Amino acid sequence: MCSVISRVRPIQRALALTLRFRTNTEDSSCGAAETRRFYHGLSIGVDPLRATTDRRYCSRMARTDGLLFRQLFESESSTYTYLLADTETEEAVLIDPVLETIDRDLKLIHELGLNLKVAVNTHCHADHITSTGLMKKRLVGLKSAISKHSGASADIHLSEGDKITFGKHHLSVRNTPGHTDGCLTLVLADQSMAFTGDALLIRGCGRTDFQQGCAKRLYESIHQKIFTLPDQCLIYPAHDYLGQTVSTVGEERKFNPRLTKSLEEFVKIMNNLNLPKPSKIDISVPANLVCGLHEV
Amino acid sequence: MCSVISRVRPIQRALALTLRFRTNTEDSSCGAAETRRFYHGLSIGVDPLRATTDRRYCSRMARTDGLLFRQLFESESSTYTYLLADTETEEAVLIDPVLETIDRDLKLIHELGLNLKVAVNTHCHADHITSTGLMKKRLVGLKSAISKHSGASADIHLSEGDKITFGKHHLSVRNTPGHTDGCLTLVLADQSMAFTGDALLIRGCGRTDFQQGCAKRLYESIHQKIFTLPDQCLIYPAHDYLGQTVSTVGEERKFNPRLTKSLEEFVKIMNNLNLPKPSKIDISVPANLVCGLHEV
Repeated sequence: MCSVISRVRPIQRALALTLRFRTNTEDSSCGAAETRRFYHGLSIGVDPLRATTDRRYCSRMARTDGLLFRQLFESESSTYTYLLADTETEEAVLIDPVLETIDRDLKLIHELGLNLKVAVNTHCHADHITSTGLMKKRLVGLKSAISKHSGASADIHLSEGDKITFGKHHLSVRNTPGHTDGCLTLVLADQSMAFTGDALLIRGCGRTDFQQGCAKRLYESIHQKIFTLPDQCLIYPAHDYLGQTVSTVGEERKFNPRLTKSLEEFVKIMNNLNLPKPSKIDISVPANLVCGLHEV
Repeated sequence: MCSVISRVRPIQRALALTLRFRTNTEDSSCGAAETRRFYHGLSIGVDPLRATTDRRYCSRMARTDGLLFRQLFESESSTYTYLLADTETEEAVLIDPVLETIDRDLKLIHELGLNLKVAVNTHCHADHITSTGLMKKRLVGLKSAISKHSGASADIHLSEGDKITFGKHHLSVRNTPGHTDGCLTLVLADQSMAFTGDALLIRGCGRTDFQQGCAKRLYESIHQKIFTLPDQCLIYPAHDYLGQTVSTVGEERKFNPRLTKSLEEFVKIMNNLNLPKPSKIDISVPANLVCGLHEV
């Protein structure tokens, strides 16, 4: 077990593991159909967020002391990569790095003077190859991490309640299966930010029609593990296809066109998306099962 | 003069107006050639930012109380649109909205319950058509704004030192010509964020080879009006082509491959970029000169 990972005690983990549904899939696709709908005026059928207490729903910048944060984007697969670091100790964590942008990411990490401890994948992606394997060859001491339920090899296999520590900060691991068996949501210690991978996207969610996908399990994951976070918690997904960079728990609880539906309606929506197969799935999944090194 | 704009007093403006060079241009292009260079290890030729005082260079989230902030992206022209609002009064400002994403932007503004007061363009763009004109038709009371030096029509013509007020917040106007005559940088009151338009990009800058462009003037603008901001001030440009979302003044002062050069070297670089003409310039500029309504 890597020193930056701290395990939660068994009793806590037992309490946290409440999901017992059969399982799910891999690779994301957003609710583009819903979110692309045009809006030709101000009288759409849903009330806006209201001031007073509701105003807290609105996104504002995270205010965590001593946290360096960067959001990066890979345009071919529309993937967001996130860099978090402790500004004092320089220890850093990278979430969902992509092979095509490894040079950009390493250059930035070097320029900022950071010591990258862990490169973590929120799940075994099907739409792009992770750079974690190649990055380990470039950075001495770097550890890769992924869910123990992913079926993928990595230095660290993460479980519910584990903590990925960098300096005085940490990310807590929440299992959010449904898109795949091994999907994780990573939550900053003060619950100001959540990295939801392909489980919850902005006004959308990951697809559930292949690779262990299970709509019911995804619905339960999001409602029990993400929507229970504070309304003002910032949501940073693994992908966005419409140029949106961030949302909040409060917003998604109110405006997500899929997750605001009942479980039955959600399952029906997810089972009738008829999405094309991801173009890279046949090379991405085998590669990502071995830390992205397949054919590299 | 719109009520949300407050003029700086003449003596202050006189002090602020220090640039007297001949002028400039329009439309952006980033330092892609430099920033795309691959990085095959950690021993590149520039020192990283150091801890202790330099650590302040590192980006962290802005911490302005009561500020709602959203960064949005339009992929065809690689344009960032920024939404800022006062979380108490709901008054909002939109920077550089794009015609293709007007529905997304209006939907978000409605969902967040905001009252959009001003839609401002950092300059008269050549690579996309602004949505400010069409947005004014959709939102009663919305005012468009642009630099008085842009040559474009708008409800509000901005000058050095003007303030765009929304609730308890405001953006201060700094003239940063060089890419075009009418380029502005908008700085949040506490100097935690600067919206640099096409003047300063992340590790790059706007091109200066057409539409009033002047490399010397751009160099002076950036050094005198942007690099004099605090090192930790977050830089939000109008475009990025490499998936970068934010930088800081400190980083650009240290790592920008063009702006770290002498004026003479910078002018030589800018005069030898040999970039293709923006594909949309012939329709974008005439449209943007009339608030984006041309041919709409």
